[in-house]
This record gives sequence, C-alpha cells and structure tokens, in this order.
Amino acid sequence: MFTVFLQKFLDLDILLYQSDFISYLESQKVSREPKNLYEPIEYILQLGGKRIRPMLTLIAADVFSNDYQRALPAALAVEVFHNFTLVHDDIMDDAPLRRGKETVHEKWNINTGILSGDAMLILAYQYFENYESTVFQKLAKLFSKTALEVCDGQQLDVDFETRNDVTIDEYIKMITLKTSVLVAAALKMGAIVAKADEEQAQHLYDYGLNLGIAFQLQDDYLDTFGDSKSFGKQVGGDIIENKKTFLYLKALELANNTDKENLLRLYNEKQKNNTEKIATVSNIFKENNIPQETHKLIEYYTNKSFESLEHLTITSKQKEGLRVFGKNLMSRKV
Amino acid sequence: MFTVFLQKFLDLDILLYQSDFISYLESQKVSREPKNLYEPIEYILQLGGKRIRPMLTLIAADVFSNDYQRALPAALAVEVFHNFTLVHDDIMDDAPLRRGKETVHEKWNINTGILSGDAMLILAYQYFENYESTVFQKLAKLFSKTALEVCDGQQLDVDFETRNDVTIDEYIKMITLKTSVLVAAALKMGAIVAKADEEQAQHLYDYGLNLGIAFQLQDDYLDTFGDSKSFGKQVGGDIIENKKTFLYLKALELANNTDKENLLRLYNEKQKNNTEKIATVSNIFKENNIPQETHKLIEYYTNKSFESLEHLTITSKQKEGLRVFGKNLMSRKV
Repeated sequence: MFTVFLQKFLDLDILLYQSDFISYLESQKVSREPKNLYEPIEYILQLGGKRIRPMLTLIAADVFSNDYQRALPAALAVEVFHNFTLVHDDIMDDAPLRRGKETVHEKWNINTGILSGDAMLILAYQYFENYESTVFQKLAKLFSKTALEVCDGQQLDVDFETRNDVTIDEYIKMITLKTSVLVAAALKMGAIVAKADEEQAQHLYDYGLNLGIAFQLQDDYLDTFGDSKSFGKQVGGDIIENKKTFLYLKALELANNTDKENLLRLYNEKQKNNTEKIATVSNIFKENNIPQETHKLIEYYTNKSFESLEHLTITSKQKEGLRVFGKNLMSRKV
Repeated sequence: MFTVFLQKFLDLDILLYQSDFISYLESQKVSREPKNLYEPIEYILQLGGKRIRPMLTLIAADVFSNDYQRALPAALAVEVFHNFTLVHDDIMDDAPLRRGKETVHEKWNINTGILSGDAMLILAYQYFENYESTVFQKLAKLFSKTALEVCDGQQLDVDFETRNDVTIDEYIKMITLKTSVLVAAALKMGAIVAKADEEQAQHLYDYGLNLGIAFQLQDDYLDTFGDSKSFGKQVGGDIIENKKTFLYLKALELANNTDKENLLRLYNEKQKNNTEKIATVSNIFKENNIPQETHKLIEYYTNKSFESLEHLTITSKQKEGLRVFGKNLMSRKV
C-alpha cells in the first residue's frame, strides 16, 4: 500500500529501489573461500530485514541526481556494515534469534561470529572502491566516523546495563550513536554519490539523524507493546534484559514511589518468571502513560527531522515523499 | 648492535624510525570516550612488541623518498591493525597472556575484546585520512585487500585445527595469508606514500611476502626451540595447542611409523601432562632433523625474498640494508 502510494504520487520509486537493491545484493554474493568464513556472511545477509538503510541511500541519490543506481555499492556497504553490527551485537547480547532465525554465533560458534563480522566490516569498505578517488575518500571518511560512533553507542549501551543513574538525555545520546548516525550517514552517502553540495548533504544527514532517533524510540515501543505475531522478535525482550530504554527511564520519572520501587527491584534482581515480569512492568508503563509519552517524543523527533527538509532544494513532491517515508516508519508495526 | 650497524653503514636509520614511531604513537593516543572502549586500545598498543611492521613502512618510505615521516600515519594504521588481529585472535585462541601481560579479554571481558577490536579496525582506516585522495584510495584499497586476506588466513588456521590432512603447501598458504601479506603490505604502503611507481612498490611487496613467510617459520621454530627466558610466550605453546605447524607436518613426512603414530596420538588426544607432551614431541622433532629442515626452509624463503631486491632501483647500500634487516629477523631469538 504505502510503497505503491509513494511510487505513484511522490516521485520516489521505493518498490524499484528495493528490488534493485535485492538484485544487486544477490549479484555481489561473496562466494569466496574459506567457506567457513563467507557462508555465515551470506546467511545473515539473506535473512532479510527491512533494508531501510540501503533504501535511504538510494532515495538520497535519486533526489539529488537522475542515477540512483550509481549508489548501489554505497547502499550495500551500509547494509553489510549494519549486519556486521548485528552479528557482533548478538554475540555480546548472547541472543539466540535474529529475524526469527538462529543468530550466526548460535548456528556456527562465537569465533565464527567474531571473524565473519570482522570480514564484513572490511567488505563494507571495499564496496566504496567502485567510486573514483574523491568520492571514495568522502564516503570512507564518513563511514569510518559513523562506524566508530556506532561502536561508541554500543559501548554506552553495555555501560548502561550496570548503571542505575542513566538519564533520558544520556539514553538519547546512546541511541543517536548506536542507531541514528547510521541512518543519517546512509542518506548522506547517497547525496555524496550524487555529488550534492556539502550543505545540502548535511541537511539530509540531519533529517536522518532525528528520524533515526524517532525510529529507535518506535522500536523500543514495539519491543514492549508490539504485536507478538508481526514483531519478529520476542515482545518484552528489553524488559527481560533490563534495558534502560526511554520507557523505563520515563516511568521512573513519572511513577509514584510504589511503582518506582517495583521497577527498580524488577530491573535489579534476577527474575524467575519472565512472563510475570513483562506483565508487571508493562502495566506500570501503561498506568503511567508511558505509551503516550513515547509517542509524544517520537512525534517531536519526527517533526524535528522534517524541519531539515525545508532547507533542501529538491521538488516539493520529493520533500513530501521523504515526509511520508518518515511518517510511515513511525506507524510501522514491525 | 644490529641497529647501530644499520644506522652507521647502511643508510637505514632504524633507531630513528623506531623512536619516531613510538613518539608518533604516543601523540596519537586515543583518549576518547567511552573509556571502557578506548582504554583497552591504549593498553594493547602500549604493551610493546617489536614494531616490525610499522618500521617496514618507514623503511620503504625512506628508500623511495627523503621524507619517511610522511609515512608515520600509514605505519600507525598497520600497527593498530596488527594489534586488532591480536585482540580478536586471543579471544578465539582463549589466550590468557600476550607479551607476558594479560590479554584484553582476560583483563576486561570478551565483549570488550570484540568491541575494542572492532574500533581498532576502524581507527586503522582513519589514519589514512592524513593523505590526499589518490594516495588515500591506494592505501585503503591495499589495506582492505590485505585485511580480508588476514581474515582468510585466520579462518584457515581455525579450520586446520580439526583437519588431519593438512599439507605443507596448505600450511604455507595459511601463514602467507595470516602473516606475510601484512608484512608485504606494510612495505608497499611506505612505497605508496613515497609515490614510488607501482612496479617498484610491487617488488618491495614481494620482498616482504617471502620475508614474512620466513619470519613466521622462524616464529614456529622459536615456539618450540626458543629460549624460555627471552621468548616472552610459553615455549611449547604450539605443541600444547596441537598446531599443525611446518615442524609437525614435516615430522609426519620424515618420521618412521612409531614416531608418526606417537605424534598423531599426542596431537589428537587430550594430554594430562603438557610438560611431558612438549618433551616427547620436541624429541621426535629433533630426532627427525626438523630444526635443520626448518632452517633450510627459512633460508629458502629469505633468499627468495632477497631476489626481489635486485629489481629495485635504489642504492646498493639501501639494498644491503634491507638484506641485513631480513637476515637479522631470521637470527632473532625473540
């Protein structure tokens, strides 16, 4: 529905981007030796996912030039990097499942997960070799900066596990680094390939940065309040893992003392019954209006993101396309 | 002794390279937040080591230009990458010690080892940003190719653990990928920074490739027959871990059936007493002339490496310097 709408009316051919990206991904299959290193890479890349980041690279290239296909290697670099972070994060989180299937370290072993992940990070850089040296350098520079920020974000996430004084500002900073900078960079890379000027590329980056924050907040919301049938991950996963998400931090701020003590206890002691824990915590969230508070913050960052669109010298149809794309991301159920 | 000799007579100012590199490393300290991510990086980088790879980058830049200091960022990239491989390999090998000190995953934990390693790989790429775009692209391209080959080599090493049909040729291929390509690339990077022509750079690469094989064979030799006081690692480590090194593979080729069966048994069953295992295996190696065989092969690759020097249009003093450098690496005790 959504994609057809965009395709017909808003000059953004999402369906085409998606199918072109999938074909390109297929054509670039790493059927290289030793197979114990490259099979896990093929495995994780064909598990699917929403492919939002590479699509953003193609969208950006399309609005700034007539040749979005030139951006396919950059889009693939972003997707391979994103999957690299999933492989290594899943080891660190000891996660058995990813997109409903076994994680790489579960299907093979931890060493394979580490090494295949390393190779993916290097492969991502190699896709930039499709561009001439000045574009190559711009892409690789932005990529390195972004990749390092993603590591910083992942480390903060780990650090927060053992801290009881995390603020909402710190949480937003963490998700900005761990998630948003890559969404923003994915867009900017498309702009770089399309040779947009630096200022325009930066406005698109800012659009992505705030959209990425909204996206992650929506993810946090769905993790607790999503529909278990469509969500793909275990609903309540964040609660089981005592993740100090916005939902939890805002609840601590708004709840009365009883609720607050309950939350602190539930997040600091090992629980025998996770189903019960999820139910209790969700209830505290609901009673304290956390779903509404989360939606309010998602809207705040979505609007902030849309403000950056005003500075872009693209057609108003294209701006509307990017706006609809953003709104759609925020009303997703998956 | 060696360094002073080179410095005085052979136009290669090894001592100066070394001290300049250490100063540069110090000046580039990553005192960045979050500290749980960057402290392990500083820790591993200051553990020392021979700094052979960055020195090779500086040597190469010096023989092809008058400004080896221009190559310091590239040299640092090589050293940081090398240390990244150590951090991740130590996790995979479950190694408690590195250069006589705790490994990163032992001092912190496995997740820290994974993530700090990832950050080091990215940091390595960032050092190339010190160069203009064409040099940047050449360096990054060579680096990505090399880094991926190192991953391939590491995977082969892991694969060999569970195989009983590894050939000497396969072993040489494995150490070429795991060790030599980086030695070769370290040299070529110096040549790239110095803007040597591609053919000359490639000859230097070949010198490094064969020197690297000889270097690793010497490492294997020292692992079993080195002096425990000066070696820094546990002597006999490869034997304990059932590593199918050249020593082991050649012994299987040369030994009589009794020795051969003994070796196979010792490498395929878990041993209670490692000291006894090391003694028995070393004896089988000695009785079958393996030390001599190893030295012969080291000499073969060292000479092959020196042949590449003939094609270089550098002074004969500089060639002699590179030859002495190579010879010295092979007579090292550490």
